[in-house]
Amino acid sequence: MFELHPQLKADTALVQKLDVSQVLLARDSRYPWLILVPEIEGATELHLLPEATYRTVSDEIRFVADRLYRHLNPQKINIGALGNMVPQLHIHVVARWSSDAAWPGPIWGVGEAAPYSEQDLTSQISKIRTILS
Amino acid sequence: MFELHPQLKADTALVQKLDVSQVLLARDSRYPWLILVPEIEGATELHLLPEATYRTVSDEIRFVADRLYRHLNPQKINIGALGNMVPQLHIHVVARWSSDAAWPGPIWGVGEAAPYSEQDLTSQISKIRTILS
Repeated sequence: MFELHPQLKADTALVQKLDVSQVLLARDSRYPWLILVPEIEGATELHLLPEATYRTVSDEIRFVADRLYRHLNPQKINIGALGNMVPQLHIHVVARWSSDAAWPGPIWGVGEAAPYSEQDLTSQISKIRTILS
Repeated sequence: MFELHPQLKADTALVQKLDVSQVLLARDSRYPWLILVPEIEGATELHLLPEATYRTVSDEIRFVADRLYRHLNPQKINIGALGNMVPQLHIHVVARWSSDAAWPGPIWGVGEAAPYSEQDLTSQISKIRTILS
């Protein structure tokens, strides 16, 4: 039975579900930062997914990256599957600008998260839903 | 005409060529750190690759990650497509251990590269070639 890791549950909010992955929004207003979590119990490594699932998840990464890129017009999309701290498989897809808090470095482990207000979180989720729809 | 970005040329050594991507070894002995560079002129974003090429590159990422994982037995594989500094599309595939220099953080932008000696570089390239063959 798949269950979202407590750390991911604490740090994100659900945007929507795709065929295999949940799309989550990180509770950090410094970046438009999405996290895809394939709903597969025990999955930890992208490359260990069965071939067909790997393909679907890869397509979902591409879909989400493409939508962020076309609608938000960032300078770069950063994609990362790390999981050194939270073992449950999750893939970051982040829109980056040269003006953002961590540029040109990676976003992970840099500074403190800047939480959204409840209102901004609701509005950002709604915006991302529209972008993905 | 595809040409490897000068920064990638300076920071890596060629291991081998796959169908679409060159597999490069980062000149940093702190981690088994491979970099895949699709030989596509002007490519900057993974998600902007044509669908069939995206699929092949995704398969190449999976192949390289799987081989490193099975042969080196690391705690994690980290996969990242960032490109904030070097615009030419390149995908990092890195074997990680809890004893390594940047654990549990990402490897990018952390400390100084520890160059291989010429002998160690040759031997590491040969080892990775065997792992991928």
